[in-house]
Amino acid sequence: MNHNELIDEAFSFLDQAYYELEKDPAALQLRKNEIRDEINAKGTYSHTYEELEQGAKMAWRNSNKCIGRLFWNTMTVIDARCASTVEEVTNALLHHLKVATNGGKIRPTITIFEPGKVRIWNHQLVRYAGYETEDGIVGDPDSVDFTNQVIKLGWRGVGTSHDVLPLVFTMNDDKPLVIDLPEDHVLQVEVEHPEYDFSSLGAKWYAVPIISDMRLEIGGIDYGAAPFNGWYMGTEIGARNLADTDRYDLLPKVASVMKIDTSSNATLWKDRALVELNRAVLYSYQKAGVSIVDHHTAAKQFQKFEQNEAKAEREVTGNWTWLIPPVSPATTHIFHKPYKNKILSPNYFYQEKPF
Amino acid sequence: MNHNELIDEAFSFLDQAYYELEKDPAALQLRKNEIRDEINAKGTYSHTYEELEQGAKMAWRNSNKCIGRLFWNTMTVIDARCASTVEEVTNALLHHLKVATNGGKIRPTITIFEPGKVRIWNHQLVRYAGYETEDGIVGDPDSVDFTNQVIKLGWRGVGTSHDVLPLVFTMNDDKPLVIDLPEDHVLQVEVEHPEYDFSSLGAKWYAVPIISDMRLEIGGIDYGAAPFNGWYMGTEIGARNLADTDRYDLLPKVASVMKIDTSSNATLWKDRALVELNRAVLYSYQKAGVSIVDHHTAAKQFQKFEQNEAKAEREVTGNWTWLIPPVSPATTHIFHKPYKNKILSPNYFYQEKPF
Ligand code: HEM
Ligand code: HEM
Repeated sequence: MNHNELIDEAFSFLDQAYYELEKDPAALQLRKNEIRDEINAKGTYSHTYEELEQGAKMAWRNSNKCIGRLFWNTMTVIDARCASTVEEVTNALLHHLKVATNGGKIRPTITIFEPGKVRIWNHQLVRYAGYETEDGIVGDPDSVDFTNQVIKLGWRGVGTSHDVLPLVFTMNDDKPLVIDLPEDHVLQVEVEHPEYDFSSLGAKWYAVPIISDMRLEIGGIDYGAAPFNGWYMGTEIGARNLADTDRYDLLPKVASVMKIDTSSNATLWKDRALVELNRAVLYSYQKAGVSIVDHHTAAKQFQKFEQNEAKAEREVTGNWTWLIPPVSPATTHIFHKPYKNKILSPNYFYQEKPF
Repeated sequence: MNHNELIDEAFSFLDQAYYELEKDPAALQLRKNEIRDEINAKGTYSHTYEELEQGAKMAWRNSNKCIGRLFWNTMTVIDARCASTVEEVTNALLHHLKVATNGGKIRPTITIFEPGKVRIWNHQLVRYAGYETEDGIVGDPDSVDFTNQVIKLGWRGVGTSHDVLPLVFTMNDDKPLVIDLPEDHVLQVEVEHPEYDFSSLGAKWYAVPIISDMRLEIGGIDYGAAPFNGWYMGTEIGARNLADTDRYDLLPKVASVMKIDTSSNATLWKDRALVELNRAVLYSYQKAGVSIVDHHTAAKQFQKFEQNEAKAEREVTGNWTWLIPPVSPATTHIFHKPYKNKILSPNYFYQEKPF
C-alpha cells in the first residue's frame, strides 16, 4: 500500500470511528492532519488506544460469520503493543487467558500486539494435540499439522487424547518459541449427560475459544497478532469438534451409550445422538459455571443485534452459511432470510500459516 | 427472443442432448437445419419426444437446489402437448397423479403441456388449504393466498386442517377452471411415532410432492405448465411443512407429547422434538409403503451423483443453502464443501404468479 492509499484507509476508518464515538469535527480534522504527517514521515501510523479499542470492536461487529455480535461493544481490549520481549509477550498471552476465563464467567477479550512484531502459530491459544499413530489419530485430528511442527521444535506431549498444546510464537521473524501453558490457566469441562452415562466417551473440552491466527485490520494497519475470544456456542463443541467424523467423531459412541438402533439411516440415530451430545455439552458447561450459549438463544441475540444495527442505521452484513447453526438450523430466524456477505473494514482476516 | 437468439439456444441444447444420446453428427446436422427452417418460418420450433424427454431430464440434473438428482435419468416423461381441451388437461393431471403415486411406490414423473396453452395455478397438485379465521389460521398457512383465490372462484372447503385444494388452471389465458381432486387419487399418510403416542397431533401429509408452478426451459422454449415430482425427503415434511412456526408449527405439541422440559432453550427441546417428528415421518411413510428418503441416505445418493457426473466429465452445480438438509446438516458431506451455483440450461425456473 502506498502512502496515499494508507491515508485513504486511515481517514475512512477515522471518519466512521469518530462519528460513532461522537467526537467533534475539529478533533477529527486535527487527528487527520496528525496521521497524514505521520504517514508521510514514517510510512505508517499508530492508533491511539481509543481508536484501537473502537477499531477492534467494529471489526467484531463486521465479522460476517459471527452469530455473537450483539455484544460487540462490550469487549475488553488490551493494548499489548509495548510488549517487546519474549517474557512480555508470554505474560500478555497468559494474562489474556486469565482475564478472559475469569473463573468461568467468560469475558470477550482481545489482546493486540505491535504490527509486525509477533506472530502466533497456534490456531487457538488452547487446543488439543493430534498424533498420528499406527492405530489412527489420537487427539484432535485438526491439530495434526501443528502438533508435528511443535514436535519438530522439540516439544513432547504425553500422548493422551487431550494434551493441551504449548504456545508457539515468533518475535521479529526470529526462531519460534515454545512455551507450555500452566495447567491452572486452562479451564476445562468434562462432558456429562443429565440422564445417560457418558463417562465411557471420555469427552471433555476447554472453556475458552481464543482465535490466535487471524489478522486484525484497522484503518489500513495490519495487526498480525491479536488473539480474541468470546464464549462458546454449544454446537461448536457438540456438533463439530466432538461430532465431525474428521474430528473426535463421537456420534457412534454416543449412540451406543444410548442403546439406539444404528442399523439404518432412517432411525435417525445420528440426529438423536447429536442432540443428546449437544444437550450434554450445554448441561456440563452450565453445571461447571462456564459461560456458554445454546444456538436458539444465540440466534435470538443475533436478531436483537440486527434490530440494534437497524436503529443505528448500519447495514448488517453476514455469511449465511456460517451464521446458521449446524443443529436444527431451520428453527432459527437466520435460516429464513438472506444476508449480504459484503466484507467491511475494520475486520478479522485469515492469513497464511507461518509454518 | 429474436429468431437468431432462439436458434442459438436451440442449437446449444441440441449439441449437448445429441452428444449425450450418442446420435451421429449427420443426424444432428439434419435436425439443426430443420429447426432453423422451422424458426425462420414460424418464429418457434417444436421438440421431438426424444428431445423433450432428454431436456426434461437434463433440467432435473441441472436443478441446483435438488439433492435427489442421482435419479435424473430415470424420470418418466409424459408428453401432453396435444392436450387441448379442459377435459384432456384434467385427465392428464389426474393421470400424472395416478402414475406418479403408483400405490405408494412413487415414480419420478413429469407431464409437459404445449407452451403457452396451459397455466396451472396450484403450487403443487396436492396441497392443503389454509383459512384465515378469527382464531388464527386453520390448515396450511402457506396456502392462504391461493385458498382465498380459489374461494373467490366459488370453491368451498370443509374447513379442516387438511382440506385438499382443487386443481386450478387456465387454458389460452381464459377463465380459470376449478376441479376437485377425486379422493381416491390423493394418497395420504397419518404420522405416527414408533414409541410416542402422536395421535393428538392430528399430523398427516400427502404422499407425492408435485411441483406445478415452475417453468421448464429447454433450448429456448418455455414450458409454463410442466408439473414434476419425485418422492419426499423426510425433512421436507418433518422439519419444514409440519415444523416451521409459519407452517403447521407442531414442535411445541410434539414436546408436550414427549413430556420434555420446555422451560429453557438450553434443554434443546426444539431439537429433540424435531428429531422425533422426523423419525415419525420416516416411520409412517415406510409403514404405509410410501417411498421416502431420509436426509443421510439422500446425501449419500447425492455423493454418488457427484461421482457419476465427474465420470461423465460434467461439472456439478449446486445451491449449498438448499442442498444441506435442515436437520443435522453437518453430518452430511454436503455441508463440508462448496458448490458453484451456476444456472445451466435446460432448467426449471420460478415464474410470476398468475393471480
Ligand atoms: C461472545 C460470544 C461469541 C459467540 C457466542 C460467538 C459465536 C461464533 C460462532 C458460533 C462462530 C462460528 C464458528 C465456527 O463455525 O467455526 C463465530 C465465528 C467468528 N466470530 Fe464469533 N462469537 C463470539 C465472540 C466473538 C468475538 C469476541 C470476536 C472477535 C472480536 C468474534 C469474531 C468471530 C470471527 C472473526 C468468526 C469467524 C472465524 C473464522 O472465520 O474461522 N466472535 N462466532
Ligand atoms: C426423486 C426424488 C427427489 C428427491 C428426494 C428430491 C429432493 C429435493 C429436495 C429435498 C429439495 C429441496 C426442497 C425444499 O427445501 O423446499 C428439492 C428441490 C428441487 N428439486 Fe428435487 N427431489 C426429487 C426429485 C426431483 C425431480 C423429479 C425434479 C424435476 C424433474 C426435481 C427438481 C427440483 C427442483 C427444481 C427443486 C427446487 C424447487 C424450488 O426452487 O422450490 N426434484 N428436491
